[in-house]
Amino acid sequence: MIIGIDLGGMSIKGGLINDSGLIIEKKSLPTGAWRKPQEIIRDITRVIDDLKLKANDRDEVVSVIGLGVPGVVSHNNAFLEKCANINLEQIDLKKEIELLCNTQVFVDNDANVAAIAEYEVGSLKNYNSGILLTLGTGVGGGIIIDGNVIRGAHGAGAEVGHMVVGENFYDCNCGRNGCLETFSSATGINKYINKVLAETKSPTVLRDYDRIDTKLIFDSAKKGDAVALDAVNRFVKYLAIGIVNFINILDPEAIALGGGVSHAGQYLVDLLEKEVSKSLYSKDIEIAELKLAELQNDAGIIGAGFMAKNLHK
Amino acid sequence: MIIGIDLGGMSIKGGLINDSGLIIEKKSLPTGAWRKPQEIIRDITRVIDDLKLKANDRDEVVSVIGLGVPGVVSHNNAFLEKCANINLEQIDLKKEIELLCNTQVFVDNDANVAAIAEYEVGSLKNYNSGILLTLGTGVGGGIIIDGNVIRGAHGAGAEVGHMVVGENFYDCNCGRNGCLETFSSATGINKYINKVLAETKSPTVLRDYDRIDTKLIFDSAKKGDAVALDAVNRFVKYLAIGIVNFINILDPEAIALGGGVSHAGQYLVDLLEKEVSKSLYSKDIEIAELKLAELQNDAGIIGAGFMAKNLHK
Repeated sequence: MIIGIDLGGMSIKGGLINDSGLIIEKKSLPTGAWRKPQEIIRDITRVIDDLKLKANDRDEVVSVIGLGVPGVVSHNNAFLEKCANINLEQIDLKKEIELLCNTQVFVDNDANVAAIAEYEVGSLKNYNSGILLTLGTGVGGGIIIDGNVIRGAHGAGAEVGHMVVGENFYDCNCGRNGCLETFSSATGINKYINKVLAETKSPTVLRDYDRIDTKLIFDSAKKGDAVALDAVNRFVKYLAIGIVNFINILDPEAIALGGGVSHAGQYLVDLLEKEVSKSLYSKDIEIAELKLAELQNDAGIIGAGFMAKNLHK
Repeated sequence: MIIGIDLGGMSIKGGLINDSGLIIEKKSLPTGAWRKPQEIIRDITRVIDDLKLKANDRDEVVSVIGLGVPGVVSHNNAFLEKCANINLEQIDLKKEIELLCNTQVFVDNDANVAAIAEYEVGSLKNYNSGILLTLGTGVGGGIIIDGNVIRGAHGAGAEVGHMVVGENFYDCNCGRNGCLETFSSATGINKYINKVLAETKSPTVLRDYDRIDTKLIFDSAKKGDAVALDAVNRFVKYLAIGIVNFINILDPEAIALGGGVSHAGQYLVDLLEKEVSKSLYSKDIEIAELKLAELQNDAGIIGAGFMAKNLHK
């Protein structure tokens, strides 16, 4: 059996995973992200110990533990360089947890882990190479080529949202201008809509709402609202530029779209396919299939488990 | 011994390569790029047969043949989908040549082959992962991660010059706007200089010349000519965006610059390092080393040989 842990800003979610990739037991604790590193680590090991007891009850042994974290991990899935929103960084998380748990541990970035989950049991299952793009507050993702995750030489690879794809009216929080996530994330489309509403008098149903979210924008676009449609088209235009960049650079077999914005569903995929097909380097050569990601909340646990299983081999 | 063949628009250049990667015999014939495919293939096999005889004279046997071509190669280094400037496409080049030569053949894109040469015996020799960017008429290159060339699922990977990095005043010949090669190639900087000279009255030494090439632009920039410096800065700005995109996506150990424009040398590397360092996602994490490529004309032959040797294993 394997233990997968999804460390997030809110909670430490763990699962006991069987050989088929099914979660058979779950355990979670609040992260308490502001606490001292040792307190957070202690609660991670509490989740692990609890799941180990549950494995024991089934006469099973846990062979390896995988941990997905929202940060940059280096030194062969061991060292946490930095971590978004959690008070853990510059720490050998692998070693710290192994000392407390007596089982081999591997750590990876949560976006890589989500891509591994899609690759093992989700939308990228039947492909040798694939990219997961998660369209949420930002744009994240993971890249898998011939079964190997592209982690980068310094643990900083697959920051797919920070590929410059154009010029935008506001700078990215990474300091550059034109990053994919400033166009094609929930934040990006919301900022654009707010700008249009403030600077124009264009009539739109969006003006009737106190709070505009991505779902409302996409739903209004589907119904033909011109302002919403313009924003969706801009979102799609730059996402298509990013996708064609990935096709031109890495030529994967499939690209899956996950994250909150991907709930726009096949409507988004259809718009993207149309835009992508206009921009190909060569019309004669087959390209990556565009798909919707399949896994939901448990992807972090499952992916962390498979990540560790693959590295444990 | 290995035979490496560099098929170019002008000539079919072949070399007999020993185990250390040294070319010990050479042979070339004109390509006659407009001729019937079978005539071109016949001359490729003539070069091979000649080199095989020379191996025989030394009591050596040729174990495998590598062929680098300016085109898209698919189906496990066999099928030439399309080929720039040479009348060869939609042809199983591996099979055709193997039938005539009785030795195993592998075919690869010439940019991948150049990257392999740098990785095996040149500027990327001491790294696990690296990217070669060739800055010439266009921008080409190859990507190697953990010793593996990223060829793409359909043979169309590593079209690194066709990553959109901004918005330009003219479209790329691939049909998109803002491709890296429209900013940071000899063509890109020349088009920009011509536009500035035509649209402004800015004084510059460049106006004294009938023909302006990249070397003149870089030399004038080094001497402080404002117009040349502006063009070089623009070239560097967008190349740095491309390089930081590669760092954010693939996080390689090193990035090497080759091609004609790289003859601007350390001056170019220094400008790039300065620009890149301003744009990093995280200032705390080590990044790829920027270097000049080391191999010159024989890179195509050597790389084709190593490509075949690696696939033959």
